[in-house]
Amino acid sequence: MDTLIQPRILKGFRDYLPEAEIQRALLVEKLTQVFRSYGFVPIDTPVLEYSEILLRKSDGETEKQVFRFEDNGKRDVAMRFDLTVPFARFVAEHKDELYLPFKRYHIAKVWRGEKPQAGRYREFMQCDFDMVGSDTASSDFEILSLMKSALDRLDVTDITIRMSHRGMFNAFLTKLGLKEKSEDILRTVDKLSKIGKEEVSVLLSEVSDQSKASDILRFIEGASTFEETLAIMEELSGAHEEARRLRTIRSMMCASGIEKTFVLDPSITRGLDYYTGIVYETFLNELPSIGSVCSGGRYDNLAGLYMKETISGVGSSIGLDRLIAGLEQLGKIKTKGSFVDVEIFCLDEELSVEYQALAESLRAKGLSAEVFPEAKKMNQQYVVAEKKGISFGILMKKEDAEKKVFTLKNLATREVFEGITVEKAASIIFASKKE
Amino acid sequence: MDTLIQPRILKGFRDYLPEAEIQRALLVEKLTQVFRSYGFVPIDTPVLEYSEILLRKSDGETEKQVFRFEDNGKRDVAMRFDLTVPFARFVAEHKDELYLPFKRYHIAKVWRGEKPQAGRYREFMQCDFDMVGSDTASSDFEILSLMKSALDRLDVTDITIRMSHRGMFNAFLTKLGLKEKSEDILRTVDKLSKIGKEEVSVLLSEVSDQSKASDILRFIEGASTFEETLAIMEELSGAHEEARRLRTIRSMMCASGIEKTFVLDPSITRGLDYYTGIVYETFLNELPSIGSVCSGGRYDNLAGLYMKETISGVGSSIGLDRLIAGLEQLGKIKTKGSFVDVEIFCLDEELSVEYQALAESLRAKGLSAEVFPEAKKMNQQYVVAEKKGISFGILMKKEDAEKKVFTLKNLATREVFEGITVEKAASIIFASKKE
Repeated sequence: MDTLIQPRILKGFRDYLPEAEIQRALLVEKLTQVFRSYGFVPIDTPVLEYSEILLRKSDGETEKQVFRFEDNGKRDVAMRFDLTVPFARFVAEHKDELYLPFKRYHIAKVWRGEKPQAGRYREFMQCDFDMVGSDTASSDFEILSLMKSALDRLDVTDITIRMSHRGMFNAFLTKLGLKEKSEDILRTVDKLSKIGKEEVSVLLSEVSDQSKASDILRFIEGASTFEETLAIMEELSGAHEEARRLRTIRSMMCASGIEKTFVLDPSITRGLDYYTGIVYETFLNELPSIGSVCSGGRYDNLAGLYMKETISGVGSSIGLDRLIAGLEQLGKIKTKGSFVDVEIFCLDEELSVEYQALAESLRAKGLSAEVFPEAKKMNQQYVVAEKKGISFGILMKKEDAEKKVFTLKNLATREVFEGITVEKAASIIFASKKE
Repeated sequence: MDTLIQPRILKGFRDYLPEAEIQRALLVEKLTQVFRSYGFVPIDTPVLEYSEILLRKSDGETEKQVFRFEDNGKRDVAMRFDLTVPFARFVAEHKDELYLPFKRYHIAKVWRGEKPQAGRYREFMQCDFDMVGSDTASSDFEILSLMKSALDRLDVTDITIRMSHRGMFNAFLTKLGLKEKSEDILRTVDKLSKIGKEEVSVLLSEVSDQSKASDILRFIEGASTFEETLAIMEELSGAHEEARRLRTIRSMMCASGIEKTFVLDPSITRGLDYYTGIVYETFLNELPSIGSVCSGGRYDNLAGLYMKETISGVGSSIGLDRLIAGLEQLGKIKTKGSFVDVEIFCLDEELSVEYQALAESLRAKGLSAEVFPEAKKMNQQYVVAEKKGISFGILMKKEDAEKKVFTLKNLATREVFEGITVEKAASIIFASKKE
């Protein structure tokens, strides 16, 4: 006999056991329902692409992390490291087949060879949704509204979505004559919540001067209400069109009754060269420290690497792994070990035919039913049902089977219903599911 | 400006545009519901694994086809080429965390560098379901019943599941003294439906002798009913225990009323060294030529490469791509371009706030609603709605908005409902969905 191979997986990768995978699947299903209710459609792209396609725009950091190799046909290929680059390539390649505005969601795995550490994996799931081909307040609002609805659907309601407008910030820096120093300034501003106002002020003075630093601080600090903050942003930037857009978005929020979730926070800028319009990050109020669980913004040239036409879009991405980790930390994840409503225990293997027929009848009524396939000790059968979190059990003896009745047991309350029919059992189980 | 990169994907890979991805997603959702109703749970495993884990048992053909490379940490890794090997590794690695019998489904992509040709892709989806840890008629039947229910759920009802028992065939060959020639014989038997009885007879005579060849032909040809065929198999093989198992499975089929779908066909053997119990293949009666769309069987040592314990199981795999291709050929695939029930057309961008609020109200009633975000020409807006297959449109003018009413239009029948409210519109749309 061959020596055994030690079963093991690569560092930074994970198996999903049933409880974890059920949890993730239910989350994805709920998100999918919300995306569809807004008219978003799914697409899929290959996991492997030409490295040239995926990596052209990437910085050195991404390049180091990507899983890249030569395939059997000597092609230089790589596994996708996000869903944005493949989407840009997809839009350019299929632009004549798509109708604009085009709204897609994509929930799929991506790979990065990052140093594995707590909460960081080399294989993880991204959940992106974008609307391209329309640069309007309506499309900006739709993404924000969708973010709120999606998190609502997951019962994640205690959140703050902090938003701003990169176009206004850019206009402001141009007005200050600091456009070429944008990178340094954005990087510094981004640290406001971490290092505080004083230190940011010092750093900004180093990049520009005392007076400009104080203007920048005034801009990013904002005021106490959406309208007051916007007034300061508009005054300092002179970006009236963008301010008007934000006011319309605000009206839409108020009309939908979701305005309390949104805070205008001009210190939100989202990275360096991609975004050009609204930008936003989402925080769990009870756990802001884990960072944003849903972020994005408007960009004005999605697929510029692959086609001459410019196409504007607005999108967002839910950090599923981070969100799940956060919800677990808050004790808000309900796990379950199976989808089974009722376990048909095996008292006598001679009755397997009757057990299987009974399971079919229960399924025909819309319940999930499984048969324990062997007459193991009852204790062992109960333990398995308990591990799977199954609420009801059925015990059927030979004399029961002849009369087409059985005993139904509520495995949690130990309540017992003797000599009942399939119809009666189904109604008891459905009633219990509604509670 | 940089030169543009030609947007393109690798040979043998595919993008899924919305219609194709919606079709696939709906198929997967339906299958998932059926798996859950039988008590199967989802798991997930990494796309990348150590090559040693994935390839130890593989033949040269697989090895040539696999995407294998050295990662940044100098590890020899490969992308999974099926879902069976990772499942075996998973069971061995987590055996102490799993409860037996363990029933899992896994619907996920796999990769093989096969020569691309019609219907063959290098990235494709597999859909596996297995029950391990129980070697009983009940678990055998459960997989067969699940296959039938899963295909029923996809409205694929005109099928034949051809089944046999590898254990009985093996016993028969041993009895004939031909055990060491199993490979050749199985390969020949497998050709029965392609090359016919005469030619198979000639080939079998070459491997054994005239008399044994005629015995083998008698075995694999069977008779006209399940019971008669089984009687021949039992007589020739002497495998009484296995015959008893098949009779119990047959009783279960009859008790569930699904026996007409199953044919006992002793020429079904499923490959060479893996299966040891029941085996089965599924054919579309209207299109048998595309081959089996759902196959599998019982194996007696799933994870023997990775652990000392032997664990028996029974499983099946749906060839999703082949099934979809077959259904398309039969004109049985209903595609749709979106999930939207109603499009709110944009007559006036000044009303965007009202349009968005209206969309929210419709969604709150359980409908999928989207707002056209720009006041493009009505004709253009209609074209997009038509491409997406949307059934209803809403037209709301300024004076309508003040009265909180609008015009609803059935885009297929052109029927128009003027001056109606959200409630009325929702009830009309729901009524139309039920038709």
